[in-house]
Amino acid sequence: MKISSSIHQHLAYLSLQALWRLWPQVKFGLTKITAQGLTCDVDIGKGNISEKDFDRIEREIQRLISPQHPQLEKITTSKALTFLKEDQQIYLQDFFKDYDGEVLYLYKQNDFQIVVDLKEVPKSFIENKDQIFFKIIKVGGVYWRDQADKDQLQRLQIVVFGSAEELQVYLEEQISQFALDHRQLGKDQNLFMFSNLIGAGLPLFLENGAIIRREIENFIIDEEIRRGYIHVYTSDIARLDLYQISGHYPYYQDNMYTPINIDDKKFMLRPMTCPHHFQIYKQKPRSYRELPIRLAELAKLYRREKSGELSGLLRVRTFTLSDAHIFCRVDQVEAEVEQALQLIEYAAQVFGLIKDKNYSYRLSLGDRMDQNQKYFKDDQAWNLAEEKLRQVLQNRGEQFVEAQNEAAFYGPKIDIQMRNQAGKEETAFTVQYDFVMPKRFELHYIDDQQETQEVVVIHRSSIGAIERLMGFLIEFYEGSWPVWLAPCQIKLITVNHSKKIVDYAHDLKRLALNQRIRLRLDESSQSVGKKIRQAQIENTPYIVVLGEAEIDSQAFEVQVRKDLRQSEFKSDATYNWSEILQNIQADIENKN
Amino acid sequence: MKISSSIHQHLAYLSLQALWRLWPQVKFGLTKITAQGLTCDVDIGKGNISEKDFDRIEREIQRLISPQHPQLEKITTSKALTFLKEDQQIYLQDFFKDYDGEVLYLYKQNDFQIVVDLKEVPKSFIENKDQIFFKIIKVGGVYWRDQADKDQLQRLQIVVFGSAEELQVYLEEQISQFALDHRQLGKDQNLFMFSNLIGAGLPLFLENGAIIRREIENFIIDEEIRRGYIHVYTSDIARLDLYQISGHYPYYQDNMYTPINIDDKKFMLRPMTCPHHFQIYKQKPRSYRELPIRLAELAKLYRREKSGELSGLLRVRTFTLSDAHIFCRVDQVEAEVEQALQLIEYAAQVFGLIKDKNYSYRLSLGDRMDQNQKYFKDDQAWNLAEEKLRQVLQNRGEQFVEAQNEAAFYGPKIDIQMRNQAGKEETAFTVQYDFVMPKRFELHYIDDQQETQEVVVIHRSSIGAIERLMGFLIEFYEGSWPVWLAPCQIKLITVNHSKKIVDYAHDLKRLALNQRIRLRLDESSQSVGKKIRQAQIENTPYIVVLGEAEIDSQAFEVQVRKDLRQSEFKSDATYNWSEILQNIQADIENKN
Repeated sequence: MKISSSIHQHLAYLSLQALWRLWPQVKFGLTKITAQGLTCDVDIGKGNISEKDFDRIEREIQRLISPQHPQLEKITTSKALTFLKEDQQIYLQDFFKDYDGEVLYLYKQNDFQIVVDLKEVPKSFIENKDQIFFKIIKVGGVYWRDQADKDQLQRLQIVVFGSAEELQVYLEEQISQFALDHRQLGKDQNLFMFSNLIGAGLPLFLENGAIIRREIENFIIDEEIRRGYIHVYTSDIARLDLYQISGHYPYYQDNMYTPINIDDKKFMLRPMTCPHHFQIYKQKPRSYRELPIRLAELAKLYRREKSGELSGLLRVRTFTLSDAHIFCRVDQVEAEVEQALQLIEYAAQVFGLIKDKNYSYRLSLGDRMDQNQKYFKDDQAWNLAEEKLRQVLQNRGEQFVEAQNEAAFYGPKIDIQMRNQAGKEETAFTVQYDFVMPKRFELHYIDDQQETQEVVVIHRSSIGAIERLMGFLIEFYEGSWPVWLAPCQIKLITVNHSKKIVDYAHDLKRLALNQRIRLRLDESSQSVGKKIRQAQIENTPYIVVLGEAEIDSQAFEVQVRKDLRQSEFKSDATYNWSEILQNIQADIENKN
Repeated sequence: MKISSSIHQHLAYLSLQALWRLWPQVKFGLTKITAQGLTCDVDIGKGNISEKDFDRIEREIQRLISPQHPQLEKITTSKALTFLKEDQQIYLQDFFKDYDGEVLYLYKQNDFQIVVDLKEVPKSFIENKDQIFFKIIKVGGVYWRDQADKDQLQRLQIVVFGSAEELQVYLEEQISQFALDHRQLGKDQNLFMFSNLIGAGLPLFLENGAIIRREIENFIIDEEIRRGYIHVYTSDIARLDLYQISGHYPYYQDNMYTPINIDDKKFMLRPMTCPHHFQIYKQKPRSYRELPIRLAELAKLYRREKSGELSGLLRVRTFTLSDAHIFCRVDQVEAEVEQALQLIEYAAQVFGLIKDKNYSYRLSLGDRMDQNQKYFKDDQAWNLAEEKLRQVLQNRGEQFVEAQNEAAFYGPKIDIQMRNQAGKEETAFTVQYDFVMPKRFELHYIDDQQETQEVVVIHRSSIGAIERLMGFLIEFYEGSWPVWLAPCQIKLITVNHSKKIVDYAHDLKRLALNQRIRLRLDESSQSVGKKIRQAQIENTPYIVVLGEAEIDSQAFEVQVRKDLRQSEFKSDATYNWSEILQNIQADIENKN
């Protein structure tokens, strides 16, 4: 649906009005109609508008929409300039000061007034909320009149569409633009690549990407083992029969690839880990005393995706899920779900993600009316399971939404909803309560009365798919990897090519590598300044220059990347080599 | 070919004669004909016969075989007893002392004499070496006359066949019996399992097996990175086209599984890593200055195996190869092959494997006459490549055999031949010189004259397939895992159930886990003695008992497993907890 430029114009004034209500001291710059919507340049004085403010600005604009039209009153330029002066609108004063002879208008809505020129007078107006669908997508800095010696304002970008669907499509395109971003960053940083001969959706992790990936994998495995998980390795193909028992084959077939024949049997690339872990659980009879048993794995999974749906590391054909299945008694569910959420939040915090900003919780429920079709029929089990999950979220005082009919077919779940750079929310991974698979696979234990009981299975991921997390983190860090993840942790720069310096540099490198510190040596013939700038462009956490003076004094200056405030290094201090390695080791341990 | 019991009997006496020549003070027990061959019980006095001696005993027996028959002379029992007494043959004296009336013989060959009874007089004799094919397969302890209060002798088991083929088949069956052994050990130690629903040849690594596997994987990746390899991750499926270019699909198709359809394309489970790494090499133009580029990966591979050929972890349908491809100039080949062998020997030494005992080198050559069929046609390239590999082995002074017609189709290779517990030699993995794939995939670099040149690719593995190595190590260590690999590194045993002790034990456990030391707590209600015995049966490297006294004194005694001579712990010393953790950490670092 095409919207007239009058409507855009009106939305611009509503936006300014909203900003003025939120920041009464706001100074207006210009507004501009663009292909996708509009921009508003403003200066709110102290502080800045940030992404966090988008929601309330949008809500304020919505609130201002009313059937009542604004008033428009012709005024002379001199009267306009007087008004602007009284109102301390310095930018608009500057803009209109050379404006003579042409007609200006005073736009008024309630107690809000602004000077506009003829070209910007709307002829039709937004009268109700269904007329336009808009979203603030970005805020950035601009100079007044594009001149770098002038004041800096902030430019809000607002996209506007005639229907919710159009807005949605636009935002999804934005996401694939972001995906392109992580693809570009991935290329620039030598993180990963694709090869047409290997196939779409099958990433190859290059040197730097493999380093980051391995650090993430080791981090989460170590952390899970520390928290009482048993890590296992299971095969990523299995007989078709296994998925027939689990019910994945009939119900989930569209997400699986075609079978492979081995001898006279059919085998599948696995889409899920659960039935594999069930085989380990069933390996021997289990007693109530053994429970909970928490089986975890970095599990390679394969999900059918059409070529058109693939997107960098975010949507791939094979990925590695930080998966686990907790086998427990009904009375252990709350404690286990709580512990799973604690691990999720701990890992998120290590990566610098903030709850309710970068991610939030959602409780996904089943539909009692759609049982036997989409959901397993057992009202009582659904009620119990949903109440237990709700209770955990309430007990921890979480802000969460409840989503009807979003459960798995085997039970309700807590979704971890991630918000990407474009602001779009997606279910990244889940904590699921399963009362169906234990029946299908006869997952039992012997209770303290020697009776056979069914376990509950909690399916959960701690950091989701490694590939997707990396895609997210590539955009999130934009190359400024924390020390523990940085492919190059310290860059050693030689001042010249003398044998003494070069040999010494190689000795220092060997000492670092022996401690598994990732040191890269720049012994190229470029100038020291250029080499330092290069290391800075690469966002290297630590830079050390090596010359005769350093060899003689055994004292090195360490240039620390600006965002590493938690670093062990103090400014203006010098360190000997073993102190440097020790400090970096400490930064790595502390996940700086 | 059936061999008469006379021949067996003659072989028994030849064996005793050989032992007497090697250990003149040997005391003979009895010999016995068995279904597969025979056994000889002997006591060599000081020291023991070990597997290391089998070769020279076998050679000595061979040497004694001659067309000349031994002499057999009737003697009375009393004369026999006198002879045995003079000869200090205490066991045979004991055996024949109650022997009266029946006829005895003195068996004589050259200067060797032994008393035998009528039943044991051979009627036909071994006259030449092609008549029998035998092998000593085992040595074990037995009590004289099977009574535990009597002296212990050693029993040699010798298998005997009428042809080399029969012996070979028997030894191969033995190997699958050994495979059964590692399967049994794997079950006893909770290392791995199979599930019929998942499928044959697809192992699942359980808690303890997964710990060992992860340690091995991290060890080899870290070590390779330290030595200048770039570790990557590539996908384990790829388009069929990739393997058509590499030539695997036509030539290697029988070892591959059937294709998977994705959209309109066919994808394969990969049987090899090389074409994947070639895609990374080809990602951008390469300069001579960048070479060598060493791409390494723990690569999941899939090879078609019939159900009947599967065997525990030794022959599986999917495995993880410690793979690498070194892209280098021709003049860099020797240095790179030498470095690859250094890494192989270093890793072998870490696992306790001894060159020329547990493994040896073989140079596998191509057949100039069979080119275009089995081998790529290029005499000059073959000559150059073979000479380079031979030179490396000669320069390091290796004992190696050359094997005709055992090369890969794309070039000659150095095979690492492992000898398993049954003494059978197998090619475990290889270092290969490849001058064919660089042509097929156009793997080039720009030389210092700005000319385009073809690289050489060296395919190599450092420790072979992780699964197979584990199968080997399970039998090799027989449960006495070195500290760095042991699933439980330290067992903490509580003396009773008092809250003070149990809480303290959990605190100590947490401190250990935080340092990634694998401590397991035995707080069961069994007696301390039983708990210690259990930990000993499990071959736990370190055992610590925790009671009130230890809490009060902060001094712990550490029971160290006997074979850990290199351990940091001294006997008769006590340690505080942080010293204990520090010592274990050092043992882990030192790969004890």
